[in-house]
Parts: sequence; structure tokens; C-alpha cells
Amino acid sequence: MYNFKNDYSEGTHPNIINKLVETNLLQQSGYGEDAYSIAAKERLQQQLNNSEAAIYFVSGGTQANLLVISATLRIHEAVISAETGHIFAHETGAIEAIGHRVITVTTTDGKLSPKAIQTVLTDYSLRPHVVKPKLVYISNSTEIGTIYSKKELQELSACCKAHQLILFMDGARLGHALTAENNDLTLADLSKLTDVFYIGGTKNGALLEEAIVFNSPDLAPEFDYVLKQKGALLAKGRILGIQFLELFKDNLYFDLAKHANRMAGKIATAIQENGYSFLTPPVTNQLFPILPQSLIKQLSEKYVFYEWKVMDDQHSVVRLITSWATDEHMVDELIHDLNTWHR
Amino acid sequence: MYNFKNDYSEGTHPNIINKLVETNLLQQSGYGEDAYSIAAKERLQQQLNNSEAAIYFVSGGTQANLLVISATLRIHEAVISAETGHIFAHETGAIEAIGHRVITVTTTDGKLSPKAIQTVLTDYSLRPHVVKPKLVYISNSTEIGTIYSKKELQELSACCKAHQLILFMDGARLGHALTAENNDLTLADLSKLTDVFYIGGTKNGALLEEAIVFNSPDLAPEFDYVLKQKGALLAKGRILGIQFLELFKDNLYFDLAKHANRMAGKIATAIQENGYSFLTPPVTNQLFPILPQSLIKQLSEKYVFYEWKVMDDQHSVVRLITSWATDEHMVDELIHDLNTWHR
Amino acid sequence: MYNFKNDYSEGTHPNIINKLVETNLLQQSGYGEDAYSIAAKERLQQQLNNSEAAIYFVSGGTQANLLVISATLRIHEAVISAETGHIFAHETGAIEAIGHRVITVTTTDGKLSPKAIQTVLTDYSLRPHVVKPKLVYISNSTEIGTIYSKKELQELSACCKAHQLILFMDGARLGHALTAENNDLTLADLSKLTDVFYIGGTKNGALLEEAIVFNSPDLAPEFDYVLKQKGALLAKGRILGIQFLELFKDNLYFDLAKHANRMAGKIATAIQENGYSFLTPPVTNQLFPILPQSLIKQLSEKYVFYEWKVMDDQHSVVRLITSWATDEHMVDELIHDLNTWHR
Amino acid sequence: MYNFKNDYSEGTHPNIINKLVETNLLQQSGYGEDAYSIAAKERLQQQLNNSEAAIYFVSGGTQANLLVISATLRIHEAVISAETGHIFAHETGAIEAIGHRVITVTTTDGKLSPKAIQTVLTDYSLRPHVVKPKLVYISNSTEIGTIYSKKELQELSACCKAHQLILFMDGARLGHALTAENNDLTLADLSKLTDVFYIGGTKNGALLEEAIVFNSPDLAPEFDYVLKQKGALLAKGRILGIQFLELFKDNLYFDLAKHANRMAGKIATAIQENGYSFLTPPVTNQLFPILPQSLIKQLSEKYVFYEWKVMDDQHSVVRLITSWATDEHMVDELIHDLNTWHR
Repeated sequence: MYNFKNDYSEGTHPNIINKLVETNLLQQSGYGEDAYSIAAKERLQQQLNNSEAAIYFVSGGTQANLLVISATLRIHEAVISAETGHIFAHETGAIEAIGHRVITVTTTDGKLSPKAIQTVLTDYSLRPHVVKPKLVYISNSTEIGTIYSKKELQELSACCKAHQLILFMDGARLGHALTAENNDLTLADLSKLTDVFYIGGTKNGALLEEAIVFNSPDLAPEFDYVLKQKGALLAKGRILGIQFLELFKDNLYFDLAKHANRMAGKIATAIQENGYSFLTPPVTNQLFPILPQSLIKQLSEKYVFYEWKVMDDQHSVVRLITSWATDEHMVDELIHDLNTWHR
Repeated sequence: MYNFKNDYSEGTHPNIINKLVETNLLQQSGYGEDAYSIAAKERLQQQLNNSEAAIYFVSGGTQANLLVISATLRIHEAVISAETGHIFAHETGAIEAIGHRVITVTTTDGKLSPKAIQTVLTDYSLRPHVVKPKLVYISNSTEIGTIYSKKELQELSACCKAHQLILFMDGARLGHALTAENNDLTLADLSKLTDVFYIGGTKNGALLEEAIVFNSPDLAPEFDYVLKQKGALLAKGRILGIQFLELFKDNLYFDLAKHANRMAGKIATAIQENGYSFLTPPVTNQLFPILPQSLIKQLSEKYVFYEWKVMDDQHSVVRLITSWATDEHMVDELIHDLNTWHR
Repeated sequence: MYNFKNDYSEGTHPNIINKLVETNLLQQSGYGEDAYSIAAKERLQQQLNNSEAAIYFVSGGTQANLLVISATLRIHEAVISAETGHIFAHETGAIEAIGHRVITVTTTDGKLSPKAIQTVLTDYSLRPHVVKPKLVYISNSTEIGTIYSKKELQELSACCKAHQLILFMDGARLGHALTAENNDLTLADLSKLTDVFYIGGTKNGALLEEAIVFNSPDLAPEFDYVLKQKGALLAKGRILGIQFLELFKDNLYFDLAKHANRMAGKIATAIQENGYSFLTPPVTNQLFPILPQSLIKQLSEKYVFYEWKVMDDQHSVVRLITSWATDEHMVDELIHDLNTWHR
Repeated sequence: MYNFKNDYSEGTHPNIINKLVETNLLQQSGYGEDAYSIAAKERLQQQLNNSEAAIYFVSGGTQANLLVISATLRIHEAVISAETGHIFAHETGAIEAIGHRVITVTTTDGKLSPKAIQTVLTDYSLRPHVVKPKLVYISNSTEIGTIYSKKELQELSACCKAHQLILFMDGARLGHALTAENNDLTLADLSKLTDVFYIGGTKNGALLEEAIVFNSPDLAPEFDYVLKQKGALLAKGRILGIQFLELFKDNLYFDLAKHANRMAGKIATAIQENGYSFLTPPVTNQLFPILPQSLIKQLSEKYVFYEWKVMDDQHSVVRLITSWATDEHMVDELIHDLNTWHR
């Protein structure tokens, strides 16, 4: 059985594991004060072209989301998210558990627009009987594989500024977004257009790690307290520093994401050539093809993947994911099987 | 200007204010240990036909809702509510602020059905990545004026029992529901069919007060701690005891609600006779007629009411509310104006 | 049995109950938008000599405390309080329940000093492994009957400003403090020296009510949301407005507190004349005499009071409280009994 | 500079890093469903002699503490801890942030006794005005290096059962406790005497990891939801499974702890031979010697350690910590320096 179910079924890129071995017995300060973490933050600041950015390494996406939101919102303030947003759909009420409503917007592409924001603001205007929308949560790439264009993000950013809303981008799959074919955004753009975002490592070559970036340090000047309070400050922060040091050396982070996207692209082409369509257009490393249930059954005997939703009596959407570690031979085999079994 | 905007624009029923005057200088124990509160609880237990019911008096509906939910749910558990439910629509995220998601169901009549519950349970089955639905919140009458029939409530109750869900009824306007023309439920029924509910006083003759009823005391055996912790335990609990003692003497509570319903009924008939329709059928003391905006404008110069939502270019829904204190002369005047201005 | 156990065993001052009767059936807006509340806030602003003060009426002290603290602190910030402080000793963890530690200081007189604050700041300096002390909670009069002098409060205020700490005064018994014999503070002083405080009505003639005063509206500009979220916004806010309108008419609030203090003073003198001492010097309406257990037993057959703590085999401290409603005849009878039974 | 400041300044034991390398590219299920985690849990259940134990791997001690406490307490319940307890002294209010008071007990040895528990229960008896003590938090070894004997733990366990209190042991340094010279407890004992505890890996050879053990699965049957909600469920749970698989193979976990204790023992003997005393008797890998400030100054030029507290004008307590990775040559050098510099 080969896994196309998620992008975290392998360990970590060899450069990282090798560096962990190499530095293993060197003594370092704890709690993120180690030399690797400090160097990794400097390296990121350079890539962001923002020497003021306040950067914190944490171990996962749910943690990153709840930390950022708990540190930036007041108790009566709420988050706006697409209904497909990870914080609403797959994080066990983590945001509500820290006291905030997630106001959802129904979308077809998983993305938020200024118009959607404006509608929420209108719906939530009966002060003080309703929560106050204050933070806009978006994902890039989204949970259904789509990405934001520079123009879309600029418009959203302007809308947020106009309404004094915090713009927060979940970048669990940011590498895949920024290396997608039609992408025109850079890390440095994100540092200007969002208030806070994070760069996902876990799904792009790291063992565990997301780098939270506050583009303005004023947004959460005491975030270190929050990290510790929520159990997110690792004693051996060195392992986080080492991972991002390696990922952001010689473009590795982007090369890994490109590989994942290229693998997905090959599969997408084969699917299209066999005449199948998609729930959302194939752009990054997540594919949502609509397939006959008979074919799904056959595929599932050899490949692991996620059955996303039933479309009709005979068709369902499945989710196929590739990663930095996806073996091209297995991709070719999948394509061969698709071509063969389809007939 | 006469107020049809809400059912809390007057003070309290004369019987209550008189009793407050009469007992004013008698010394009593604090924190709900006074003789009036004890007697009022016994009187309610009799009406509920449930001597085991654990009863607590609090000062308002939002407070009642957050107290019950915070005392009964574990941190990963969630509430199911109609989208129009007061806890979702008008309580400033009070439930999320105590850590719980409110999962919403879109309805046309503001009521929840076993089918809707089942759909939510299916949608929230990806344990542990989603919250666990655990409490079903309903209102009777609902926020849009409809009521539950005995059969509907029996079915919902059975569904909740089958899935180990807590059934909680918000009774801010319970009097109006139980005295509606086609109602077939009694207080004693509620004590059997729900796990916990509250009897609203504030909107039916009291100054401030809701009586929370745990039909089984095992559901929240340490609720007294929660009352105190959330700032809901009044030092002079006597004022709550006195209000319910009076309201549940000689059927006063139901007589007051009947008056409100009768006043609303008269207005509803006039509206219908003038050829207008309603968002939801007129049943209790809340009316949601769809009126021409020109008429709304004219009415709003003499009467205060709430503009609920725009329907089209020329029509809007307004909310008209009557209460125990609504003056029949003013109702007649409104009807006269409707008949006159309509032409 | 006559009650010296607390200062909330009677109803409300006749002026208030009469005004409630008089205004009972007049229609008013809900949720604190009524004419009485608006007028009462203006009257208080005048007495505070601070037209900018943002004033909110709530129904009790625990509620006031948790509202102010939840609206002003960030999640990693903590409160400093005397160990005897009401928020630590008698509010069922209300402050921890909204997420904040209460750091306690052991005192003999229930008061905080700049020196104590400084010690806490030193103890809590290991950022980010400890909470950040941010709000100083004091009570005047304190839970053991003592009061702050103007000089003490000025020094504490300066200390808080120097360390960017919020100074919050719990005034559940503020009337008794401001009318104590050796008091030199005024309401206007408090409006300058504290950041936020509240004026207690429940223990000084009201049915239920505390007036929260933010001396600078910038401290919690969206406090209205918090009021609603925590279930503290009464539908019939009129009853709060009316109470403070009456209390602050013609000096009534202070006259009532003076009566309570005078009654306590008479009892204190009798106790002293009989040769007994006190846990804390008698200053306001709370007395903490150290009495022989035999005398306590005898007194408790006729009077209700609180046994505070055991001192030795034969003596205990009791708490005797007087109020605006304490009957002077009963005070005289108590004194007579003390004089008689003592021998 | 050599580090005696903490026990997390190196990476991980070679067996672990080698296994991470070896398994790195094998595909595994995410979120703790991997083969290594499953095998590691079985191995631990055997060592605990408790096949019913519910085991969860998390990344750090603060996280473990807040997860266990948030999953087991109701909102009005509180924790009892020594004042030196990590949850009170060094976790940034993590427990208060999830809503619960930490009631502290002053101790000389960092340990709780039935007598101390009884005192807290008496102090917190004024229901409902105080929180309800419900969980007893202890650490073994404690934050000041002491350990519990079997007899002490049996007595505490019996006391907790008698009062329906949950007994929770923080085992961040459990290896060091269970391999101390005078220890008579085993893992299997802990599984009988506590309700829940955790086995610390981070400070004894792992990169990051603590294993939470619910001795009865009924205590928190839905703990998986809580793990996810608080951001503690790692996508690549495999790295946690691998670490504990290795640590509990061939007694490695205990061998590593013994080394740390032996290194500390050598240092302690030298300190004693030089005539210095200790804040608490040296038992495990944490030493708290009272040294002249002149000597401390000299030592701090070559060694990193923590200055714990000032004793008098000329002496302070320092904390010296050894670990599984402490180099015996450096220990010998420190001893040599102590012997030399002391004269």
C-alpha cells in the first residue's frame, strides 16, 4: 500500500536528520535560546526582507493557530474563516476553547474575499449583542488546494486595514502555494500584506515545526509568555531551530514543495486525460478528483487516500496528496493503474 | 411613542412590586437561603410534579444559558442550536467564551428535529479532529415565535436519549409558548421530556428572573458553585424568591402570558385582514409581519418596533412584541391605524 | 434572632422601593438605555468630578470583579491581591475561571503597599516562565474592615503608574470607607488615583447594584460587549438606574453608610469598655472582636453573626456587621446584653 | 563553559537518534496511529503491569500538566500543589488559563502529605463561596530534588481515595526518582497508587516527550479530543513512539537516570567534604548546595548553573543539575575545582 492520504507519512528530509545527528551532543541553551534557533530566525528575516519580524517556532498547525489567536484577540472578539478553514473544520474547537467564536463563510474555493468580510461585518453589527469580528483567518494554500493571487491578497489586506481587522494566514502548506505554477506571491509579500502568518514545515520536510511570523512585533509583544502558558515552548528548542536552518538553506524549502506540486501535476494530468473532473482545479499538492466509485474501490486496494465526499450514486470525490517525499516511481505506477483500470 | 419592540419595557406586575414593598424590611438570609426562595422552589416543584427537581433562580437568560452549559459540558463537547437560537444570534459569544462551540442548524421555523440532530452527528464524526456534540439547545417559544408540540418534543427527547445528548430548553418566553392556542405541553411534561430547562420571568411580569430547573439533580449536583463563580448568586436572593412566589400563585404566570398572546392575536388578525403575510405564522406574543416599507415608515412615527430584515425593494419584515403589560387601548389604536393607513 | 451577620439581610431603602413603585409601569428602553440609567450616570460623573468616566451598573460584586478583570487583562497577565481579598477568598475561583492567576500577599490589615507590590514583581520576574503581574486589586473598606488613607492610596497609585499596573478598587463597602471617622478620601480622589473602581450599592441600601467606574474610558472602550457576554446586562436596566439615582440624591448614600458606621461604633465602644480587643481596629461597619467562647455561645442564642476564626482554647474572633438598616434599638439591646452577660 | 544548569542541554540518546535515522523514510500513519507508538504503548503497559492503562505521548511537561488537568476537572474544581510545584512556580499560569485555581501548600521538602491535604479541605469548606479542591498534584522527584517513599505515597493515595480526590504525579524527572538510592517505588506501584501520572522523557534522554498514563481509562475516556484541541497531537506521532520504544528497551531509561544520579552523587560528596550544606538533602540529579558567594562567582566563570536564592549576605543556594549526558570528566573537573577553589 502506498500513501497518498497525507503529507506527513514520512519522517524528515535527510539534510535535517543529518544535521540533528551532527549537532546531537553539543550543549545548547534551552527554550529557544539556542544558537540554531537564533540563526534560523535571522535567515528567515532576510528571506522576508523584514528585520523587525518577530518569529517563533512551534510544533504544529493547531498549536500555531490557537497561540496566535489567543495572543491577539480580546475576549469579545471573533475570527472570520471559510467554513472549510482548518480552525473550523478540523481542530476540535481549539479556538472556541480559548474563548472565541469562529464566524464562518460558505465558499466554493476555500478563499475569503472583501465582499464576504463586508457581509460578516454587516451581520455582526448589533453591538453589544453579538461578538465583534476582529481577525480574518485564511489559509494558503487552502484546505481544498486553491491559492491566493497577489491581487486577491492585496485587496483582502486593504479591506482588513480599512476595518481594523487583523489578517492572519495559516501557511501549513505555504511552500506548495508559493511554488504553484500560477503563484505570484513571495514570502516578502506576505510580510507586507498580512499581519501575522506561519510557514509550515511539518508538511514540507520537517519532523515537526511551523514558524509563526508577526510582521509587526507590536501585534503581540509578549507572545513568549503565551507560548509557555499553552505548553508550546519546547525545552529542546534546538530541534526546531535546526530544522528551519536546513529548510531555508539553498532554497530547499521551495525545492521540496515544487517536487510535491510536480508529482501532483503528473497525477492531475493523467486524471484529466482519462476524462475525470475535479472539485477544485488542481493547483498544488492536494487533488480532489471526482471518480467513479468502482475505480475508487480498485485504487483503494493498492493506495491509501481519503474519501472526501459522495457526489452521487456512482461518484465520489477523493483527496490525493503528494509531498516532498513522494516517490516518482509510485506516481508513475498510479498513473499506469489509472490509465489501465479506467478502460 | 408606544413600545412594541420588546417584552421588557415596563417594570413588574403589581402583585410583585407590592410584595417587595410588604417584605422590604424583614431580615432574611442571603444568597438564596431566604424563606421566599425556599417556598418558591417548593411551589415550582409541585407544578412540575417533580419533587426531585433542582431549581435555581438567576437574573437573566444569557446568564441562565451560560451557567447551564458551563456546568454540564466537558471542554471538548459542543452545543447544537438553530442558527436563530439566542445563544448563537444574540449573546455576544457567551458560550464560546466559556469554551464551547455552538454548532448551528439552518431552519425555517427556528426548531430542531431529530433529523437535524442526526445530520450534525454525522458531520461531526471524525473523532478526535472535531468537537463532540453533546447538548441540544432549543427555545420554546423560539426566537421567531413558533412553539414545539408535545409530539415534536417527545421525538426530540427520544433522539437525545438514544444518542446520550443533553436536552436543554431555553424558556425565556415559556409562558407564551405554554398558553398558545395550539399548545399541548405542560410544565410537568417539560420536566419529563427535557434534562434541564428554564422558566422565564423577565419577559412575563418579573423585574428580573429566570428559574433554571434540572429535572434530575444528578445532572449538575454542584451547580451552586458555578452560580457563585459566574457572578450569578445574588446577595439578596430574596428578590428572586418573591417574584416567583407571586408569579406562580393563582396561575398569574399563565394569565399574564395569555394576555400577551391575546394582544398579539388581535394585531395578527388585523394584519391578515389587511392582506399581509408573515415570516412565521403568528402563534405567540411575537409577530413577524411582512409589510410595505411605506407603511413601516408611517408606523414607526408612532410605535417603536424592530425592523427584522429586508425582503425586497418594497417590503420588510418587522417584529412586533406584546407583553403582560401591553395596553389593550394601544393595541386597538394600532389596529385602527393599520386599517386606516393601509388604504 | 437579630442579624449582625451581614449587610444584605434587608431589602432596600424606602426611597428606592418607592421610586420603583412610582415608575413601575412607565415604558423604558431596555439594556441600560433607559432614562434613569442615563441620568444616574450623569449624576455620578458630577460627584466624581469626571465627565469622561465610563460608568456601568451591574448586579453584584463578584460580577463586577470578573467583568473588570476579564476586560482589562491579556491572557498571560495576573492580579495581585491581599490574601484576604474577596476575589481570592470568597468568589469560587471566578478570576481563575476567566483565566487569570490571583497572586496573593499576606497582610495583617488587608491592605496592599508599594513594598508588597515590589516584592511580587521581583518574585515574578522570570519571564516567560511566570505570569506577568498587571492589575492590583484592593478593597476599600477591606474585607477585615480597615480603610486606605489618602496618602496610602497616593503612594500605591504612584507605584502602579511607575510599573504600568492597573489599579482597581473593589468598593463593595465604599460608602462605609468614605464615611469612616478618619477617612480623608473622596469619590473625586478615587477617580484620580485609581484606574477603575466600583461603588457598592447592594451593601448600602440598594436591592442589587454596583456601579463600575472606568476613570479613563480608554481602559476598556468595548466593555459593553463584555457585560453582555458574561450575562451581566439586565434587560430591565431601569431598576439599576433608579437605585443609583436615589442613592446619590441629597447625599443619601453617605448618610446610610454613616448610620451603619455609627451603629458599629456604638457596639465597638461597648466591647472595648468591657475589656475586649479586636483582630483589626474598629473603623467601619465590620467589627472583629476577640471574645470568650462562653460569651459567643450566649450571644448566638439571640443574635446571628459569623464566627471568623478560633484564637485559642477559650477565645474566638467573631464578625459583627451593621448596615443602613440596622435598628438602633437592637444595637442598644446588644450593648445591654454585652454589659450584662460579660459580668 | 560546561552546563550544569538543566537536564535538557544536549540532544537525544544515540539509540534514539539512530532509530530515527533508520526509520526516517518508512511511511507511517499520522496522529499517533503509527506502528511505533502502538508498540511503545504496549511495552509501557507491560512495565506498568497494567494492560488497561490508557497512554498518550505528548511533547512537554507543561503540556502534559494542562492536558491532564483540563480533561479531569469540572470548572469549579481546583488543584492542590506544593508552592514549589512546577504548575504553580514555572508554567506561566497554564492551569489558571484553563480555568482552575492552584491552591498552594508551603513545604520544606516540596512534598504533600495527608495532613496538608486535610488542612486545605478544611480551609476550602465554605461551599459555594470557594472552589472545590479535587486534584492533588505532586512531582516525583520534586522540583527541589526530593522523592516520595512508597509509604508516603500509599498514605497520600489512601487520603485521596477517602476524599474522592484525583492523585496526579508529574514525572518530568521520574527516572531520577525511581533510581535514587533510597527509592522503593516502581512504575507498577505508581500505576496502582496514582490515578494518572506521566513518565518524563525530555529530561532523560529523549528529544521531546512525556508519556501520560491514565491508570484507569475511565478517568478521561475522551482524552484524544483534548489532545487535539490543545494542539498537542503531533501529525508525525511516530517520533514520539520511536523515542519511548528505545527508552524502554533493555532498561535504557533507568540506566540513563542512574548515570545522572551517580554524577550528582559524586558532586554532592565533594560539596559535603568541603563542609557545605544543602537546602534539601542530595537524593537525585538536582543539587541545591548553599555556597559562599565568592565561590559561586568563581564557579560561574567556568560552569553554567542557576542561582536559586540568596540565603544571607555571603551565601546563596545554587542549583546544579546532571543528566544522562553529563560528561564524567567534567564532573571530575568540577570536583577538582571545588576542592581547589574552596581553600
